[in-house]
Amino acid sequence: MPTIKDVALKAGVSATTVSRVLNNRGYLSEELKHKVHQAMEELNYRPNELARSLSRSKSNIIGLIIPHVSLPFFGELTSHIEEHAYREGYKLLLCNSWQDKQKEQEYIHMLRASRVDGIIMGSHTLEVEAYRQMNLPLVTFDRQISPDIPYVCSDNYEGGKLATTLLIQKGCRHLAHIGGHPKLNILSHLRCVAFEDMAKQHNLEYVTLHTDNNSFDFEAYEQLLGQLFAEHPEVDGIFAGSDIIAAYALKACRTRGRRVPEDVKIVGYDGIMLRSLLDPPITTIRQPMEAIGKLAVDLILQQVQGHSVAAAHILPVELEEGATT
Amino acid sequence: MPTIKDVALKAGVSATTVSRVLNNRGYLSEELKHKVHQAMEELNYRPNELARSLSRSKSNIIGLIIPHVSLPFFGELTSHIEEHAYREGYKLLLCNSWQDKQKEQEYIHMLRASRVDGIIMGSHTLEVEAYRQMNLPLVTFDRQISPDIPYVCSDNYEGGKLATTLLIQKGCRHLAHIGGHPKLNILSHLRCVAFEDMAKQHNLEYVTLHTDNNSFDFEAYEQLLGQLFAEHPEVDGIFAGSDIIAAYALKACRTRGRRVPEDVKIVGYDGIMLRSLLDPPITTIRQPMEAIGKLAVDLILQQVQGHSVAAAHILPVELEEGATT
Repeated sequence: MPTIKDVALKAGVSATTVSRVLNNRGYLSEELKHKVHQAMEELNYRPNELARSLSRSKSNIIGLIIPHVSLPFFGELTSHIEEHAYREGYKLLLCNSWQDKQKEQEYIHMLRASRVDGIIMGSHTLEVEAYRQMNLPLVTFDRQISPDIPYVCSDNYEGGKLATTLLIQKGCRHLAHIGGHPKLNILSHLRCVAFEDMAKQHNLEYVTLHTDNNSFDFEAYEQLLGQLFAEHPEVDGIFAGSDIIAAYALKACRTRGRRVPEDVKIVGYDGIMLRSLLDPPITTIRQPMEAIGKLAVDLILQQVQGHSVAAAHILPVELEEGATT
Repeated sequence: MPTIKDVALKAGVSATTVSRVLNNRGYLSEELKHKVHQAMEELNYRPNELARSLSRSKSNIIGLIIPHVSLPFFGELTSHIEEHAYREGYKLLLCNSWQDKQKEQEYIHMLRASRVDGIIMGSHTLEVEAYRQMNLPLVTFDRQISPDIPYVCSDNYEGGKLATTLLIQKGCRHLAHIGGHPKLNILSHLRCVAFEDMAKQHNLEYVTLHTDNNSFDFEAYEQLLGQLFAEHPEVDGIFAGSDIIAAYALKACRTRGRRVPEDVKIVGYDGIMLRSLLDPPITTIRQPMEAIGKLAVDLILQQVQGHSVAAAHILPVELEEGATT
């Protein structure tokens, strides 16, 4: 790989001059700049960004810690984050935590040591103290870990309200909610709270079931749905905490001969691309994934530039009717 | 953030000594090492990996360029690559090329300038020369771009043979293949070649349809399937180039009142997790995604360590019967 000295030799100038051109420092004639740039081009020279970022203490890298990029929702969100970071001249270090405390901790150390400019965090198994110690621009997604760390989320309560209201309007009288683990301080639990509030307001029976661990475990969804139909055969309306859970609910109805939407109505959450491939296509609460991804990147960049940012960023959701309601 | 000087002050030694401890250079008593490590711990000091990697010319970062991480196949493959890279102490820079020539080019420059240790490339829109100029450990996925650049792929020809043979065994007499653009030198086109070979061997009519651009365009799949059923209503067996295309074929049959598998049989390719959520679950040719991801990382690491590696790495596929055949 050609060095700055090779460029200097080729251009017939000193290495210091090449460095000044690279960093646009001091007076430089157009002719001189042209000569150096031409030499760089001919040699296919690339300035060493690692060294440059070191001197200016910026790596132009954002770390992204999410549970698992192969989950459709996180895959789509990651795409939007990557796209927007790229447009702003930033690269994305992808870290799947698998919701594993140790892996999350190690990744945070790795990211700090690599001097990333900020971290977008969609995973959260550690204590708040671990995040505070990072001393780095941070944005969390769907998790409020401390009053001074900004977070981005969809309007989970409104989403839960929209979903449950639709089920009730469509005539469901025995409601069920299936979601992830509620004990973590994750904002998506507000979907469940809204569900319960609406059911109570309408004096309807309801049941809520949750995975008992911190993972996105497809088998757990199948088990929960088996349990639901065994213990509560009267259920005629399901609000699922994600489109994937809704897809499993659809599958569970199919294998038990329950017609959707005639016998059981289903509403999902997220609005992943693949929901339209299911039969019938799922009614869902759509999160504005592109806006969420863009805002998460913008909040990192604002902090990098030294601006203070507001803590809460709650984006609106939309009901998107498919054929399961 | 504490510096090496803060550690030196706290430990009562010189900054040079701290540096020697960090790099394990020269004679160091256990007592001295203990003292320095304790000071680092108390100050919550992390050595600056950026500076360290600069001095040893290693960033411990692998760049991954793929078309789009929100495509289920690439999302799952990325997860496996990330998992294995992490185990080997490497981080992953994620680059979605969107199969866009300019974005791919810019990403390659960015990755070179950032001194990544190697690049795993699942996108390919540029000329071979652009890759040669990288002068970096490189592994391609499903694309053979030059005889001296190693590639990893599933046994595409065998997969196409297995899929087509199954359709024929199950009684299909009018076969169709729908896949991506064939004119790129991508190895997955061998799926189509095997399809044609099998159809000819059995003297069966067949038709092949391909997207006419370089993207993974969901709308194009719907159009192609509309065209297929309009121009070839006799088709009773479809080999789809991916599980996503197979899902669209299933949807197209549904909307046209064609029963699957009674009227039309469908086989996909990839083995993505979500195929089992479709109704009926799709029969597919499963690629060994975990093995592919692990091997891609290993081939980068072997090159980083200065070993020469073989060019062709073709991994076996498996037929996995669902309920569409």
